[in-house]
Amino acid sequence: MTARLKSQMSFLDEIEKLKVIYRRNRTVDGARFENSAEHSWHVALMAIVLFEHADTKSLDLLKIVTMLLIHDVVEIYAGDTWAYDTAAKQSQASREGEAAERLFSLLPDDQARGFRDLWKEFEERKTANAAFAGAVDALQPLSNHLCSGAVSADYEPISQTQVIERKRYISESSQVLWDLAQEIIRKSAAHGLYR
Amino acid sequence: MTARLKSQMSFLDEIEKLKVIYRRNRTVDGARFENSAEHSWHVALMAIVLFEHADTKSLDLLKIVTMLLIHDVVEIYAGDTWAYDTAAKQSQASREGEAAERLFSLLPDDQARGFRDLWKEFEERKTANAAFAGAVDALQPLSNHLCSGAVSADYEPISQTQVIERKRYISESSQVLWDLAQEIIRKSAAHGLYR
Repeated sequence: MTARLKSQMSFLDEIEKLKVIYRRNRTVDGARFENSAEHSWHVALMAIVLFEHADTKSLDLLKIVTMLLIHDVVEIYAGDTWAYDTAAKQSQASREGEAAERLFSLLPDDQARGFRDLWKEFEERKTANAAFAGAVDALQPLSNHLCSGAVSADYEPISQTQVIERKRYISESSQVLWDLAQEIIRKSAAHGLYR
Repeated sequence: MTARLKSQMSFLDEIEKLKVIYRRNRTVDGARFENSAEHSWHVALMAIVLFEHADTKSLDLLKIVTMLLIHDVVEIYAGDTWAYDTAAKQSQASREGEAAERLFSLLPDDQARGFRDLWKEFEERKTANAAFAGAVDALQPLSNHLCSGAVSADYEPISQTQVIERKRYISESSQVLWDLAQEIIRKSAAHGLYR
């Protein structure tokens, strides 16, 4: 095995660990929390199916899908930070930055650089590709939450206003998806999922 | 919400169920079986990282990644068929064909047709894109098995020869990945994972 292939496989083996990083949403059978690997699969496929609803028409779908496939891998070292945990949110950027450095360094230099740049682009959400990827990433937990239906007894419920504020950036890349998100939020509130 | 978006969301909600279709491999902490959604995430990212090792150089990576993201969704209705279950293998094609018809029909007609064709292309493994996607799909359970390390006590162990025969088609699209697969199989056998 060449050193290059060995590096690639050490990264691909290490990311096995994303399958045991659990989020606060549940699977549709209610049996367990959703993990960040299956969430990443869902958002990648969601980006493909909903691509036509991006307001900007010259996006790079392969780039968006790749971003979404890697956007959460840093959680292997940094843990999942809940979107509404204000305290944890403050240290999130530095914890995840260090994690990205460590994790992507397993890859050959050119691929490490490429993935680090792509992950940073996603995090900064300044490009049209990153904005659309971010919108889909913000949408998926909403539809998952409405499907799986459970209010987690482990956490204090958040309010509809909090969710609307937190997800408002979806509107920056897709008006259609923002309308959809608001409809899902209203339905979820009517089902008692938010205060 | 337009009828088109409604169709797209009904598909994206339905595939939540792939997260609770369990395979025979385990997660790296040994705590549970791997599911087909997180497996699909892993193979999609694997295809991106290992793309340079395809023997054919004019492949379409977005097409390969999309194939891998949808290749297992039919299991939502047809269940996961273990690669070494000869009896279940006989009915697999018809069960999965019906499932594909039913599941992809949730999408708007053009997308349903596109996904059905792509899924069929993957299954038939006749094109160079499908052959590479198939090779990565065959490789991932090998490396996962070696990482997670557990021989499932629930099933009779398979032999090294069975695994080699079952995975030989990796060589049709990548000699490098076939050499790698054989090395992983040898190591796994040395760790007692195969007879």
